[in-house]
Amino acid sequence: MTNLNNQHIAPIVGSTCKVLSPATVANVVCGFDILGFALNEPNDIITLSISNGPGVTIINADDFNLPTKAEDNVSGAALIALLEETPDVQGFTLISEKTIKPGSGIGSSAASAAGVVVAANHLLGNRFSKADLVRFAMFGEKVASGVKHADNIAPCIYGGVTLIRSIYPLDIVSLQAPLLHVTVVHPQIEVRTADARQILRQKVLLKDAIKQWGNIAGLVAGLLQGDYDLIGRSLEDVIIEPVRSILIPGFDEVKKRCKEAGALGGGISGSGPSIFMLSKDAATAAAVEKEMAAVFTRIGIAYHTHLTTINSEGAKVVPL
Amino acid sequence: MTNLNNQHIAPIVGSTCKVLSPATVANVVCGFDILGFALNEPNDIITLSISNGPGVTIINADDFNLPTKAEDNVSGAALIALLEETPDVQGFTLISEKTIKPGSGIGSSAASAAGVVVAANHLLGNRFSKADLVRFAMFGEKVASGVKHADNIAPCIYGGVTLIRSIYPLDIVSLQAPLLHVTVVHPQIEVRTADARQILRQKVLLKDAIKQWGNIAGLVAGLLQGDYDLIGRSLEDVIIEPVRSILIPGFDEVKKRCKEAGALGGGISGSGPSIFMLSKDAATAAAVEKEMAAVFTRIGIAYHTHLTTINSEGAKVVPL
Repeated sequence: MTNLNNQHIAPIVGSTCKVLSPATVANVVCGFDILGFALNEPNDIITLSISNGPGVTIINADDFNLPTKAEDNVSGAALIALLEETPDVQGFTLISEKTIKPGSGIGSSAASAAGVVVAANHLLGNRFSKADLVRFAMFGEKVASGVKHADNIAPCIYGGVTLIRSIYPLDIVSLQAPLLHVTVVHPQIEVRTADARQILRQKVLLKDAIKQWGNIAGLVAGLLQGDYDLIGRSLEDVIIEPVRSILIPGFDEVKKRCKEAGALGGGISGSGPSIFMLSKDAATAAAVEKEMAAVFTRIGIAYHTHLTTINSEGAKVVPL
Repeated sequence: MTNLNNQHIAPIVGSTCKVLSPATVANVVCGFDILGFALNEPNDIITLSISNGPGVTIINADDFNLPTKAEDNVSGAALIALLEETPDVQGFTLISEKTIKPGSGIGSSAASAAGVVVAANHLLGNRFSKADLVRFAMFGEKVASGVKHADNIAPCIYGGVTLIRSIYPLDIVSLQAPLLHVTVVHPQIEVRTADARQILRQKVLLKDAIKQWGNIAGLVAGLLQGDYDLIGRSLEDVIIEPVRSILIPGFDEVKKRCKEAGALGGGISGSGPSIFMLSKDAATAAAVEKEMAAVFTRIGIAYHTHLTTINSEGAKVVPL
């Protein structure tokens, strides 16, 4: 649907579209800062219209009380970045209905930032490339966490599993993956992305780094070769998880029980507190969900679970 | 040809075979300690016979004056390890004709260690798996460098490009690669593997490690997807090369000129001093060879070059 001739469709004030923007899992155990994948559920619902502006008007259609001043809002910041390269449009009006809880660790801010630029691009005749959209959406991530990272944004826009080989220059590679069932548990505790970054050590042992790059190489090979066992063996993180998992009560027990229930492996989603597990089949993924629920019930922490698969399309336009 | 029933063929004293055992490139820029590939040239020629023993008798058919006491010899140590699991054989006699210069950085010791165990396995009816052969051959690497590394051994035995995801437990993954032309230059200077290891820092910056695992993930994806541009973009090493390249006069100039001549990229082969470059086609690989030659001629260091391709078979039995 990309407008390959790059002929700009004249934007019409009042034209509106609706986008489903998915949750995403970033880091993916051994892929800290470079790997992510999109989920089929949950999704945010974004309704965007071209307005006379100037700038971005934000209406929240949920109970999260997110900022409505565009500069302070993840979606707003992404749209402002896009508007700077869109001289023929004065502004947008956004109705944001989030179902992905902010702070859950499954890419809530990325879904907002990526979803609005996908919607805007649709209204503008798809004049921008996906790489451009990632670039705009990263301004939203900067509002959310202070860092322009792309490991949630990229899978949200490209769908599937994405490798961000490099941020500067931006180099995104889509990785074909076999069918994978994903179970996510979101324990209702707060882990701030900024805190989760701050506790990481600035230096790591070379021998640990070697283990980590052996595992990420194995994970990429496992995904591309459809080798589930290799995927499972490679889902090991000797650098980030040992530090960050301390912030998530029950983490070790969840991981152990889920693997015993047949999960290929998994770990912290993004910077947490959500934990994800990958399974080869739906029955295992459901068994994994029960283990997750049992642990947090025992500990006495409220939680949500999601039982889903990898979303191959990313944020997509749906009928109004 | 593996004997799947694991029925041992009775070894016959005096039975002999000949194996061509190839040079290999380990580390492969961003794949320090985990990646390697085999070359179609040069090869060592190994002639192995089952003997009445006891132990391993070594005859050198070249001018390298390598130790002939089995325990001190790379091939001998590998064969001793194999003999410990071969109660029905008393010993071997090896005639070793090396063309891969020891200390060149293109897996001379691995060719010796891997070649002899491939030959022995052939004489024993292929009773051992390739993973077993890697395990035996690593004893040879330990004699050579003090470390049981497998990043030359594995490609020498499996052929093609191999990922060593883990050494303990041993986990080797063959990676299907597109046609790649390899140019190698061996400047006649000495870089001892042990020295090249010692100058590495024990700790690295997390941000550098992240770059490195982004690149190794990109390189694996580029190989498996046959994406030459991605292979080229991923051939970047921010951790090992900046330290080790200091030991190789002319390194930066070689790299710059080869890339300008069209090479996809490359770097230090193993721990050096050889430098390898990958190219998409034979003409570029030949142009790259000229650049390498020009640099070392100008500096006044004697050199050898090899113009070859990736060897997909590994060490192989050839007619006597």
